[in-house]
Amino acid sequence: MKSKRTVFFLSDRTGITAETLGHSLLTQFDNVEFDQVNVPFIQSEEKAIRTVEMINRAAREDGVRPLLFCTLINEDITNILRESEGLLMDFFGTFIGPLEQELQMESSHTVGRAHGIASSHNYRARIDAMHYALDNDDGVSIKDYDKADAILIGVSRSGKTPTSLYLALQFGVYTANYPLIQDDLERMRLPDPLEPYRHKLYGLSIQAERLVQIRAERRPGSRYASLEQCRDEVRSAERLFRHEHVPWLETTSRSIEEIATQILDETGIPRRFY
Amino acid sequence: MKSKRTVFFLSDRTGITAETLGHSLLTQFDNVEFDQVNVPFIQSEEKAIRTVEMINRAAREDGVRPLLFCTLINEDITNILRESEGLLMDFFGTFIGPLEQELQMESSHTVGRAHGIASSHNYRARIDAMHYALDNDDGVSIKDYDKADAILIGVSRSGKTPTSLYLALQFGVYTANYPLIQDDLERMRLPDPLEPYRHKLYGLSIQAERLVQIRAERRPGSRYASLEQCRDEVRSAERLFRHEHVPWLETTSRSIEEIATQILDETGIPRRFY
Repeated sequence: MKSKRTVFFLSDRTGITAETLGHSLLTQFDNVEFDQVNVPFIQSEEKAIRTVEMINRAAREDGVRPLLFCTLINEDITNILRESEGLLMDFFGTFIGPLEQELQMESSHTVGRAHGIASSHNYRARIDAMHYALDNDDGVSIKDYDKADAILIGVSRSGKTPTSLYLALQFGVYTANYPLIQDDLERMRLPDPLEPYRHKLYGLSIQAERLVQIRAERRPGSRYASLEQCRDEVRSAERLFRHEHVPWLETTSRSIEEIATQILDETGIPRRFY
Repeated sequence: MKSKRTVFFLSDRTGITAETLGHSLLTQFDNVEFDQVNVPFIQSEEKAIRTVEMINRAAREDGVRPLLFCTLINEDITNILRESEGLLMDFFGTFIGPLEQELQMESSHTVGRAHGIASSHNYRARIDAMHYALDNDDGVSIKDYDKADAILIGVSRSGKTPTSLYLALQFGVYTANYPLIQDDLERMRLPDPLEPYRHKLYGLSIQAERLVQIRAERRPGSRYASLEQCRDEVRSAERLFRHEHVPWLETTSRSIEEIATQILDETGIPRRFY
């Protein structure tokens, strides 16, 4: 039987940083069931005191002390949380000291820079890239391919849209996507509109069995979702990638984050911001 | 003049965890220009050795030691990187020991769980939510509002689409969005199709000056992008939110992450996964 443990992500803004590292660590412990609570925007001593009460309640109910993953910048508020009955891991404070020493300067102790609207340049870049991805989704428009950083190609439901949107929102990369249809696969040639942009192409593939599942959710029982049809399309698409020397990736066991990172790592396409 | 420092994000998978915490820390040092390099997928000793060479080259060129933000799980590979001329901050190793002690078990030392396709349930949930957001963008379809966790409303270009997509991709939350048009604002009433779903509504507002900038990018010189029009729409929309008791947020100085987190925090809408 799994043991149970309550985990709190404590932050002065969104909690995304605390969650990201926290999840990485928690996934290393299989035999514990973690009950996760995000407490964002802890910006006052009052909210910190209320949070301590929540933590202590969880400690009493579980009979073990909760884990606290914390990224607060304000040390006074962090110290209030430290007085609780949880085990506090200070993701921020642990490294800010060594960094101050190495850089020989004090940190600014300013809240909310990481996921605040730190730079309006970055904000515009990601929103522009997102609108670009939406406007250039699924081959609906091809007139703006000059502006594309990458053009994803693949059969229907191979993951082109989520990958395009993720590349836009996370990295500001302008990504169009274009579906490979039966005609293209039979001709075993790239669709004509893509010819001038070959150097921007990147292929996505997927296991036929997985494709069946995804397609069947939208059109159960259709030929479109049949194993035969999916196998045929996937096999032809991969042959086309090889034949036309388009770099490509088998995505079945990868998350969207991994697919996106892999594309940038492999092609050298620069992100618009860090 | 700003001093310069090279920063490496070192990971066995995407580097997203290393970057997220690394950025939080770096934003606390205003007077340094950080030259950032992501080195993902360090899964072999050979790649680690090549990475050490890159780090040492940067150290020679900069004349100061690079900062290394590291989330590798394999200690042998981390130790190779530790031998470089950079200052290594071990985001993973620093906390895994205390966690093992607290949980009284060894960690599994398994690579790639955080942004791997850890759970196909989560993967499906976020992709389904993303397709939901796309299908229910901008009021194009209202037949699936029963399934919505939230319905964002606001004037054109107030940030509804990016927020909807972020809520879907990050939290698996089903988010539709519906634009407020002149007619709605003049009647000072919610659009009829939204009436049955009032409890799901959340309003987004924005400063008129910022709205002018955003609209002018798409339709420069138009009445749509004029300050007068934007002021009028924003003022009416905020009055409508108050009049109809719709919770709402002024988004101008907030990032997409913050807007999304704030909505969940305020409404109590649960995310589909952690």
